[in-house]
Amino acid sequence: MRNFLYGVDVGGTAIKIGLFSCAMQHIEKLELETPTEEHETKIFETITQGIRILNEKNGLTFDDIVGIGVAVPCPIKNGYVERCPNLDWYKINLNENFKKWVPKEVKVRFANDANIAALGERSMLYESYEDVVMVTLGTGVGGGVIIGGEMVEGARGSGGEIGHMLIVDPSEVDFDCGCGSRGCLEQIAGTRGILSYAQKMIEKYPDSILIGKKFTVKDVFDAAKANDKAASATFERVTEYLARALAIIAVIIEPEIFIIGGGVSKAGDFLLQSIEKKYKEKARFDTDKIRFALAVTGNNAGIIGAALMIKES
Amino acid sequence: MRNFLYGVDVGGTAIKIGLFSCAMQHIEKLELETPTEEHETKIFETITQGIRILNEKNGLTFDDIVGIGVAVPCPIKNGYVERCPNLDWYKINLNENFKKWVPKEVKVRFANDANIAALGERSMLYESYEDVVMVTLGTGVGGGVIIGGEMVEGARGSGGEIGHMLIVDPSEVDFDCGCGSRGCLEQIAGTRGILSYAQKMIEKYPDSILIGKKFTVKDVFDAAKANDKAASATFERVTEYLARALAIIAVIIEPEIFIIGGGVSKAGDFLLQSIEKKYKEKARFDTDKIRFALAVTGNNAGIIGAALMIKES
Repeated sequence: MRNFLYGVDVGGTAIKIGLFSCAMQHIEKLELETPTEEHETKIFETITQGIRILNEKNGLTFDDIVGIGVAVPCPIKNGYVERCPNLDWYKINLNENFKKWVPKEVKVRFANDANIAALGERSMLYESYEDVVMVTLGTGVGGGVIIGGEMVEGARGSGGEIGHMLIVDPSEVDFDCGCGSRGCLEQIAGTRGILSYAQKMIEKYPDSILIGKKFTVKDVFDAAKANDKAASATFERVTEYLARALAIIAVIIEPEIFIIGGGVSKAGDFLLQSIEKKYKEKARFDTDKIRFALAVTGNNAGIIGAALMIKES
Repeated sequence: MRNFLYGVDVGGTAIKIGLFSCAMQHIEKLELETPTEEHETKIFETITQGIRILNEKNGLTFDDIVGIGVAVPCPIKNGYVERCPNLDWYKINLNENFKKWVPKEVKVRFANDANIAALGERSMLYESYEDVVMVTLGTGVGGGVIIGGEMVEGARGSGGEIGHMLIVDPSEVDFDCGCGSRGCLEQIAGTRGILSYAQKMIEKYPDSILIGKKFTVKDVFDAAKANDKAASATFERVTEYLARALAIIAVIIEPEIFIIGGGVSKAGDFLLQSIEKKYKEKARFDTDKIRFALAVTGNNAGIIGAALMIKES
C-alpha cells in the first residue's frame, strides 16, 4: 500500500525534504545543502539521497511512496524549465529527468515554489477557497495564483510572477531589477528596494534611529512601528505599491483571498493592516470584499504544498 | 432531439438573439430593442419573445433547444448580479429567474458579456488555446479572461474588469471613471479618455487636421496614421497604457494569446502593431512570446460566445 508522500523544496542554499502520510500528517523533515555545481545531476542525487535516509529511518521503501512533489525557484511549465540561472538549469524537463532516479510507480511533479507555497497556505486556511493569490515578500517578491483549485503556471511558467508587475515609474528606481527590467513591484517591495529607499529617507530625516547603523528590513519595519519618520516613509511606500498591485490583480482574476507571506511578512499584523487599509481605498466594485490573511506555514509552505500537489494529482 | 442553441447578447440599446445548430452553425439572428423600464421582467419577456419568433420561423419548439446562453453587461458570478445600474438589476439571480420563463429541460446560463466575447473569439482562432485574455476597446475598456478553457468570473463577478486596472497616476486624468475611482486604464483608453486627451493635444499642436472639428476616436486614429502630431501623441499614449496593462497581466496569469477587440479595434493592424511593439519592450521573462490577434467576430462575439457557453457546459 502506498501511504506516504514526499514534499521537497529546492532553495538556493538548502533542499528541504518532508515526509507526510496521505492524510497530510507531517512525519519528518530533513535539510540538505544545495549542491553548488553539476546541478543537473547533483540536485536529483541529493533529493534521492534524502528520501532514502528518511525512508530508512521510518522503515519505508519506495513501494510505500505515492509520489514526490518538488518546489523549484524557476519559471516552470508542466515540469519544463526554459532557463533557471539560480540553479543552472537550461531547457530541461525536470519531471522526465527525475523520473529516472526513482521507481516508475512513484509519481513525480516539479512546479514553481511560490505557486506551491500558495497551495500549501491554501490548505491551512480555516475556510475552503478555490481562488487564492499569495504574495511572498523576501529578497524578491514572489507570487502564487490558484484558480479553481489549480495552480496557474501560465503559458511558459511566468504565471504568478507578481513581483515583476510593471507598476513603478522607472524614474522612481535607480537600479535594474533581477529580471533585467525596470519598474517592477519587486524594486519597491523587495529587500534591495526597501533598504536603498530607507537609506535615502535616513539622509532626509537624520533624526532616524537607524542612522549610522547597518540595518535589515525587519529593523526598518520595527522602526516604522515606533513612528520613526524615515522608516515610516519607507514602510508606507512599500505597502502603497503592494496595495496597488493587489487592486490590479483583483480586477483581473478577483481571488477570494489574498495571503501575505515570506520573510518580510514577519512584521505580521502591522504590515497586513497597512496593506489592507490602502487596498480597500483602491479596490474597485466589490473587490473590497476580498479577504486578507497572513501565511502561517512559514518555512514549511514549500514542502507541504509540494506534497499536496502530489496528493491532489 | 435537442439540436439547437440560443446565444443572446443583452446590450444597453439592443438585445441580439442568435439561433445556432449544435455544430455552432449560425442559423438566424434577430435584434430587439432593450426595454427601458421594468427590466426585471421586461428583459426576460423580450428574450423569450425573440426566441419564440425564431423558433416559429424555423419550425422549432422548445423541445428542440438544448439551452440559452445570455451575455449581460454586469459583474456576475454563477448567474448572480449584486448590482447592474445599466440594466437596473439589483441582487438578482438571473439564471434562477429566467428559468421560470422557459421549460425546465432547457439549460439557462447568464454570464458577463466581455468574458463571453472572449469565449466566442477563442473559438474563432485558427489554433486551439486554453488560456486567453481579450481586451475590448470601446466606450469603456472591457476584458475577458479564460484559463484552462473556463471563464474567470472572479469571486463576485469582477474577473476580467481590465479597464479598471489602477495603472494611471490619478493626476494624469481630470475626470472620474465610470466606476467612481480615478487612475483606471479606461480613463486613458476608453472613448472619453481618448477624445479629451486629443482635444488637449490639438490645443498644443494647432496645425492638427482635427482642429475645429467634431471628431470621433476613429478620426483620431486615422489622423495618427497620417502622422498628425496631436493625434499621434494621443494614439501613442493609448497604446502605451494598453501595452503596460498587458505586460502586467502577462506576469500574473501569462495567457497564450491576447485578443484585441471592440469598436476602437477597427483601427486594426495599425493599433495591434503599436500595442504589440510597446508590449514586447515591456514584457518580462518569456512573456514576449505571448501571441496577439485581432478579434474577428465583431458584433457577433456575444451571441456566439453565449451559445458556446451552453454547448460546452
